[in-house]
Amino acid sequence: MAVQTSFDPQAFRAALGTFTTGVTIITTQAEDGSPVGITANSFNSVSLNPPMVLWSLAKNARSLPVFSNGRHWNVHVLSTEQETLSGRFAKQGEDKFAEVELDTGISEAPLLQDCTARFQCRTAFQYEGGDHVIFVGEVLAFDHSDRAPLAFQSGQYALATRKPRSELRLATTPPPPECSYTEDLLGYLLGRGHYQMLHALRRLLKNQQLDEHAFFILSVLCIRDNLTIEELNTFVEYTGHVVSLASMRFLERQKLVAREVNGEQVRYVLTADGREASLQELALAKAVEEDISAKLGAGDAQALKVLLKRLIAASDPGLPDLWAAR
Amino acid sequence: MAVQTSFDPQAFRAALGTFTTGVTIITTQAEDGSPVGITANSFNSVSLNPPMVLWSLAKNARSLPVFSNGRHWNVHVLSTEQETLSGRFAKQGEDKFAEVELDTGISEAPLLQDCTARFQCRTAFQYEGGDHVIFVGEVLAFDHSDRAPLAFQSGQYALATRKPRSELRLATTPPPPECSYTEDLLGYLLGRGHYQMLHALRRLLKNQQLDEHAFFILSVLCIRDNLTIEELNTFVEYTGHVVSLASMRFLERQKLVAREVNGEQVRYVLTADGREASLQELALAKAVEEDISAKLGAGDAQALKVLLKRLIAASDPGLPDLWAAR
Repeated sequence: MAVQTSFDPQAFRAALGTFTTGVTIITTQAEDGSPVGITANSFNSVSLNPPMVLWSLAKNARSLPVFSNGRHWNVHVLSTEQETLSGRFAKQGEDKFAEVELDTGISEAPLLQDCTARFQCRTAFQYEGGDHVIFVGEVLAFDHSDRAPLAFQSGQYALATRKPRSELRLATTPPPPECSYTEDLLGYLLGRGHYQMLHALRRLLKNQQLDEHAFFILSVLCIRDNLTIEELNTFVEYTGHVVSLASMRFLERQKLVAREVNGEQVRYVLTADGREASLQELALAKAVEEDISAKLGAGDAQALKVLLKRLIAASDPGLPDLWAAR
Repeated sequence: MAVQTSFDPQAFRAALGTFTTGVTIITTQAEDGSPVGITANSFNSVSLNPPMVLWSLAKNARSLPVFSNGRHWNVHVLSTEQETLSGRFAKQGEDKFAEVELDTGISEAPLLQDCTARFQCRTAFQYEGGDHVIFVGEVLAFDHSDRAPLAFQSGQYALATRKPRSELRLATTPPPPECSYTEDLLGYLLGRGHYQMLHALRRLLKNQQLDEHAFFILSVLCIRDNLTIEELNTFVEYTGHVVSLASMRFLERQKLVAREVNGEQVRYVLTADGREASLQELALAKAVEEDISAKLGAGDAQALKVLLKRLIAASDPGLPDLWAAR
């Protein structure tokens, strides 16, 4: 950590950016009645009694005169689903409020919908802050919803995963310290998560007289039909379940796949029954996912997927794209 | 979203808390030379030129006179590894600086080590802010490291997962829209992540002449030795790999497990070779995890584990605690 005393603006910005923030849109009404809004992450709470919040605005911002002259403005803490709105209000030029539905607030300042929290404010103070003006507002009204809040860190949108107050343990007793195999092992957590998901499908698979291996083959064919055994294996073999002639014969006997022979090449396609079986599995997998997402909350469920995708990219042994155009 | 105009302080606090922040410790030196420090999340950037930051402090805080009279203070943006330090500086009473190593800064204000970013400031303004005082500081020096920053949301510490600018896709082509099986399916992501981890162990397992099923059995015995087949299955069966007499006979022939007969009950224990094989697998799993963690970054790797544990708890079919005391 070399201390920098010369002010490279980019380095300063990068250092400031490490402080995580939420994302807000702050709105007001211009004197001509037109709505004005900007994206800001310089928001913060100030006072509980009287209730006050603050944010700051660049002195060269086009909207500065409007906010300086206006008495009322609204702060909207954005949810993870409002990233597009955030992007729109961060830019200049276009009609930011086009097709944006508004609620009626206590002032004329536009009040956006579907936010995580909203604060309707009246300017209490405007303070000098270098190249910015600091607006301190008295909060006249507020509300908040259960929507997961959007975060921002080092120039990118982010999803914040709250940590439980005590170390999250799956079970009730701490593992013996001398045991180097702990449940904090990433491989264990991935395996347990995966098999618990599969476990939830097990009853359906049993009714379909299928095992995990058959389920994988049907899934691949459901996404990408008409494959040779060799091609199937490029998608399945890394799981350790190698697709063999016997695997396919079993599925043929079950009337879930059919073979198409072209000269010496044998390709497999799903039958109508096979597609139906696979879509039933998919529907159940989605239902299980919805149940888990509800328990985790939308923000955490989304964060988990982002992280799993990053893990998959980081450990990819070079698998072909199952969804690639052909 | 019912608008609240009456100010229930708890509801107001809850609404404010939805705005995600980083966590800072702000330090100064009292007139008697003693170090002073508090945890604050009311920090924010204000101005780039001149470089300025702000934070606010309750008027009834014991440290207010010191900060009001002092000219210099340092802001430390905390890393995910400084949660304990954050907790210590959030409380009153104890000697917060005991055994805390300090760097030499440009003022007498204490400069903490191992932070994500640090800003050494001189008070530029002190502003009225209801029950708080707003401190605006000119930044005289700053630095930042690669340490993942700690976040705070709704009263809990949090880990922020940055989202890639474009939707993160594993492969290069978007899936056909009519295909309902997408790679955004949680079950797919978990399975692919799990099997890619296993794939990285495959060469070792092959050298050991073991398959995934044998690997699971050895892992369980490494954590919890001396089990009957029935007991082994309480930990393994949910994976779909049922432990049978044949599974155990295979491991006996490989001289990795031994049986201990007590009347009619047969229990299995690892041999020295079995323990050695299992610990080799564990070492490789940890090496793979380290490689992935380095690619993901420490903060994201930690967030992934927190989320996987939450997923496991949310989808637990009631597995016994593998690490429970006996």
